[in-house]
Amino acid sequence: MDFSTDIKIRGFHIDVFGHMNNARYLELMEDARWQYIDATNFQDYLTEHNWGFAVVNINISYKRPAHNGDIITFEVNMKRMGNSSMTVDQIMKNKKTGVVIAEAEVTFVVLDLATHRPARITEEVKYAFVTPK
Amino acid sequence: MDFSTDIKIRGFHIDVFGHMNNARYLELMEDARWQYIDATNFQDYLTEHNWGFAVVNINISYKRPAHNGDIITFEVNMKRMGNSSMTVDQIMKNKKTGVVIAEAEVTFVVLDLATHRPARITEEVKYAFVTPK
Amino acid sequence: MDFSTDIKIRGFHIDVFGHMNNARYLELMEDARWQYIDATNFQDYLTEHNWGFAVVNINISYKRPAHNGDIITFEVNMKRMGNSSMTVDQIMKNKKTGVVIAEAEVTFVVLDLATHRPARITEEVKYAFVTPK
Amino acid sequence: MDFSTDIKIRGFHIDVFGHMNNARYLELMEDARWQYIDATNFQDYLTEHNWGFAVVNINISYKRPAHNGDIITFEVNMKRMGNSSMTVDQIMKNKKTGVVIAEAEVTFVVLDLATHRPARITEEVKYAFVTPK
Repeated sequence: MDFSTDIKIRGFHIDVFGHMNNARYLELMEDARWQYIDATNFQDYLTEHNWGFAVVNINISYKRPAHNGDIITFEVNMKRMGNSSMTVDQIMKNKKTGVVIAEAEVTFVVLDLATHRPARITEEVKYAFVTPK
Repeated sequence: MDFSTDIKIRGFHIDVFGHMNNARYLELMEDARWQYIDATNFQDYLTEHNWGFAVVNINISYKRPAHNGDIITFEVNMKRMGNSSMTVDQIMKNKKTGVVIAEAEVTFVVLDLATHRPARITEEVKYAFVTPK
Repeated sequence: MDFSTDIKIRGFHIDVFGHMNNARYLELMEDARWQYIDATNFQDYLTEHNWGFAVVNINISYKRPAHNGDIITFEVNMKRMGNSSMTVDQIMKNKKTGVVIAEAEVTFVVLDLATHRPARITEEVKYAFVTPK
Repeated sequence: MDFSTDIKIRGFHIDVFGHMNNARYLELMEDARWQYIDATNFQDYLTEHNWGFAVVNINISYKRPAHNGDIITFEVNMKRMGNSSMTVDQIMKNKKTGVVIAEAEVTFVVLDLATHRPARITEEVKYAFVTPK
């Protein structure tokens, strides 16, 4: 696995049905991705180039409910690095039981914030993305 | 189209990249689904049976950014009604330009809130779901 | 009253205690303030000057819980327009029963987005703020 | 200080003005309060009695903007424990610079989730609240 982090579910993540709301999964998965990037040189590389991210597709399967107080392990794995987009696999597991809560494929482009156009993902970009700090 | 509603994007929907954040799309799409249900008899039916919804899969493609002040038209179309799950197509368009902002397939089960098990989606359930109030 | 709008509470506004979460009140109150501004010339005025808002204080009293499906009337009243800050009173009422859900005083400055410094609130600014479109 | 924790600001906490949105402060302050409670016996005590929290007032002053990537230290101090409500002081500081980002007084009651009425905050309740695990 490329990266893993734990996040505890709080009362404000829960919705009227007593489980974590479907949209909150995406915020917490985004948090896990930023933590992954924090562990690499990639944020410096983004800032240098005035680049950001734009998510182009998310395919998420909700397997089991997450409840208030659950500690969830978020795994992030780089699945594919193309010339114009990248896809990461994200798996959420209940830390205590190991049960899979959700699985998602998140595909994004690297965005030039000046032109609002996708940047070409060269070998140099890929290298910066996976190089530990 | 089965249902359509307009929602205006606000400053708190935007993230650090100046566009609507990917997780917010899901909240607004959920709002549109509730508005659809408000227009049918289905909420009464749910309450009567102590049932709720559980989303099991979302496949969303982000096509164009949405900005502060944009008015977005949310279309909701029932795509498939099976015995154990239903899928709706949701399309977000910029109301002014007609440009597609995002497309999503949202699959959910009807959940028995007492047993936390999916309810069987009988012909009666399907009928309640699509009957206008 | 200067402005009033209705917003329906949805499942994702609710938290683990079965009521609207305290932070969500602020998002919906912000939405009501934007709707108020939409009804005046002030957004044009802001855009022209490259100005935005910065909230400096919120004092909110939560009086009664809001539940899924409640329609809440948001009243916005300009309370004070000083030279460097403005205060609006915001009252949330259950539309059906008239019961007060929450009351808040929201104080903000007008921010020059180039310098990130508060702009002086001249008579012209005040006039733009309250002039209906 | 009674409790302190660090939280890193992420892209989805930021709004159209490039700073953390006013409502997000309340979510992160709530997270800090739950972390405080995790460090005491109080959650067990709540669960045993079928009790929850209801916030009755928040008075928050936003002092300086928080930006993407900032690490914020959240301090939580019990200010007042009455018979029917409690007030905590919450201070947010930029961890690197020590600059105060926001200060808030949060007043809440302990809620009986069966009757939806506030519970009396006896000496035993107060003791459970402040006893480290």
